[in-house]
Amino acid sequence: MPLTDDMHLISVDDHLVEPPTLWLDRLPAQYRDAGPRIIDLPIQSRPDDPPANVWQYEGKLFPQIGLNAVAGKDPKDYGTEPLRYTDMIPGCYEPHARVIDMDIDGVQAALCFPSFPRFAGTVFLQADDKALALLCVQAWNDFMIDEWCAAAPDRLIPIVIMPLWDVDACVAELRRTVAKGARAVSFSENPAGLGLPSFHTAHWDPFLSACEEADVPLCLHFGSSGQAPQTAPEAPFAVTITLFGCNSMYSTADLLFSPVFHRHPRLKIAMAEGGIGWVPYILERADYVWNRHRFYQNVDQRTPPSELFAEHMFGCFIDDVHGLGSRYEIGLSRILWEADYPHSDSNWPNSRKRAIEVFADIPDAEVRQMVETNSRELFNFPR
Amino acid sequence: MPLTDDMHLISVDDHLVEPPTLWLDRLPAQYRDAGPRIIDLPIQSRPDDPPANVWQYEGKLFPQIGLNAVAGKDPKDYGTEPLRYTDMIPGCYEPHARVIDMDIDGVQAALCFPSFPRFAGTVFLQADDKALALLCVQAWNDFMIDEWCAAAPDRLIPIVIMPLWDVDACVAELRRTVAKGARAVSFSENPAGLGLPSFHTAHWDPFLSACEEADVPLCLHFGSSGQAPQTAPEAPFAVTITLFGCNSMYSTADLLFSPVFHRHPRLKIAMAEGGIGWVPYILERADYVWNRHRFYQNVDQRTPPSELFAEHMFGCFIDDVHGLGSRYEIGLSRILWEADYPHSDSNWPNSRKRAIEVFADIPDAEVRQMVETNSRELFNFPR
Repeated sequence: MPLTDDMHLISVDDHLVEPPTLWLDRLPAQYRDAGPRIIDLPIQSRPDDPPANVWQYEGKLFPQIGLNAVAGKDPKDYGTEPLRYTDMIPGCYEPHARVIDMDIDGVQAALCFPSFPRFAGTVFLQADDKALALLCVQAWNDFMIDEWCAAAPDRLIPIVIMPLWDVDACVAELRRTVAKGARAVSFSENPAGLGLPSFHTAHWDPFLSACEEADVPLCLHFGSSGQAPQTAPEAPFAVTITLFGCNSMYSTADLLFSPVFHRHPRLKIAMAEGGIGWVPYILERADYVWNRHRFYQNVDQRTPPSELFAEHMFGCFIDDVHGLGSRYEIGLSRILWEADYPHSDSNWPNSRKRAIEVFADIPDAEVRQMVETNSRELFNFPR
Repeated sequence: MPLTDDMHLISVDDHLVEPPTLWLDRLPAQYRDAGPRIIDLPIQSRPDDPPANVWQYEGKLFPQIGLNAVAGKDPKDYGTEPLRYTDMIPGCYEPHARVIDMDIDGVQAALCFPSFPRFAGTVFLQADDKALALLCVQAWNDFMIDEWCAAAPDRLIPIVIMPLWDVDACVAELRRTVAKGARAVSFSENPAGLGLPSFHTAHWDPFLSACEEADVPLCLHFGSSGQAPQTAPEAPFAVTITLFGCNSMYSTADLLFSPVFHRHPRLKIAMAEGGIGWVPYILERADYVWNRHRFYQNVDQRTPPSELFAEHMFGCFIDDVHGLGSRYEIGLSRILWEADYPHSDSNWPNSRKRAIEVFADIPDAEVRQMVETNSRELFNFPR
């Protein structure tokens, strides 16, 4: 009897599309023009169509409003990025509608990553005016806590982004948002990919210590390093989508051989959307390398990588049959479920139906742990 | 009773270090100076030590003679690249000594990749004088067939490299070497990484057709795209070693979504040293992506990636417990064993001993298939 009716599905990787006035509603008057806002842009190749909705920020245009928000579409229609809010179902950008879509999907609670700011808010890292950028980060976090999650506090888990360019500002923003309810931070899977100091430096220590003190985990979404797996200019995008989990493998190996967990023994990190089927391979390989190569390198000499993983890290999966078959190797306590609404990996509106199939041969207690208990514990989000 | 005494271990990934006069012995007189030869170079920081042996080619120095040829060393002494031939055991560069080392290791037959030319001979691709470079490729192939493998034709499997800069020359060199006994080609895991046309172009078709006609498989060694997994400048090299299998994942996804197998229905490709534990995850993920994203992309609309893999590709492993546990998902016929002598991943002189442990719970017939039969068939290398 897998996935019984009383089990809550908690998704640790969903996405929201920012409503058009998120920043207009929150930024001081002098920043209204430069801050992110939606403008209407006629489509040159289709002049008879209604104009597209496009983010404008510091005078630059950001044409992808929804990062492939395809929930409810037929796969045959994928590939066409939504051009307007009216091309999306309202659950993408409106919290009450989202909760209804979660009901349809059989999902109890969700952690929603940003769209326009990118998964870890890196659009603001790349901005010119960092005073404005800090206000933009704060505005997104306030929206997340005060408006998005406030619409259904038992259904939506507050996750916040950080002003990545300033580690002291990260500490301050973490404390400010935790005080008002933040339960997770969306951070970069590899800051070095963004031109920032890597996990192998001491740079992030004050922030990581603040996360430990607040008992707030980091969620590292694949792609949040600004890097995407690419093989060749002509390769179909399917290659990149297939390989995105490699970003999470990179990040996992990078962290396991870094000083992060030795300096921060209570830190927890979840690899959002990375899948779990690769975890046994990477941990076995990391231990193999550690056994042979630790002696001449600046690597912890006592704790094998697999033990660090078991203590600190979590794999997250949407639909990973091989990964579930390997759940004892990964560790039942290390596995979190996700729905990925409204992206193309999602099974919406059939997430629960698909989960019932995927969990068919797995004992009750194990299913409950993976879909609900692990997440409630990690995010301090009790029933 | 796994790995019984009558089963031959066939290693599809070992390495040889080129003897100092390989090219001097074979190049026409006018090329003796510019062609690869070993020179003695005093070590500035240790002037009392004997000089290092260094390859010189077209006036440039290539300080790594052995690409981490550490067979026989204690892991505590890894990290120090051999500086001289006398720092290595003779089996690295001398075929009769190699066969003795294989006997010690319990290995019946081996396929040996180049060292100085790099896995797919890409040093010659980057050379200035392409007439000389072609002669260098031919010299290596002649050494491989006439000297290395001729020393023990039932123990050493001839693998050749190609003049990658000229597809017609590749066809000619393939035919020339096949006529004298070549059984495999060491090719690039991703030519696009080398600045060459990718697998998604028609560029390689004449060469791939020639491989099909000759029934010669391609061996794509990880790293042969010129790319190495890197996360940060300060990351210990252990991160890169742990992640090298991601190169094989990239290459597998790249090929499965390319036209290569549709255009070349008899082509076979082995992913040398890539490991196998990741194969079920990547195939499941590739099929998932294919199911959702094939419609709007230039992707084969009929054959799921997992079926293409089952028809065309092989995973190769040294010591992959998770991969062996997943052998039915990977496909027993898709798995090849390897020893990796004399590199740091190798278990030499305990390869057979370690294999007995790894195969302990696997039925006889399955073990034989993975360690011997699959390879003998793929490389046309009967008992």
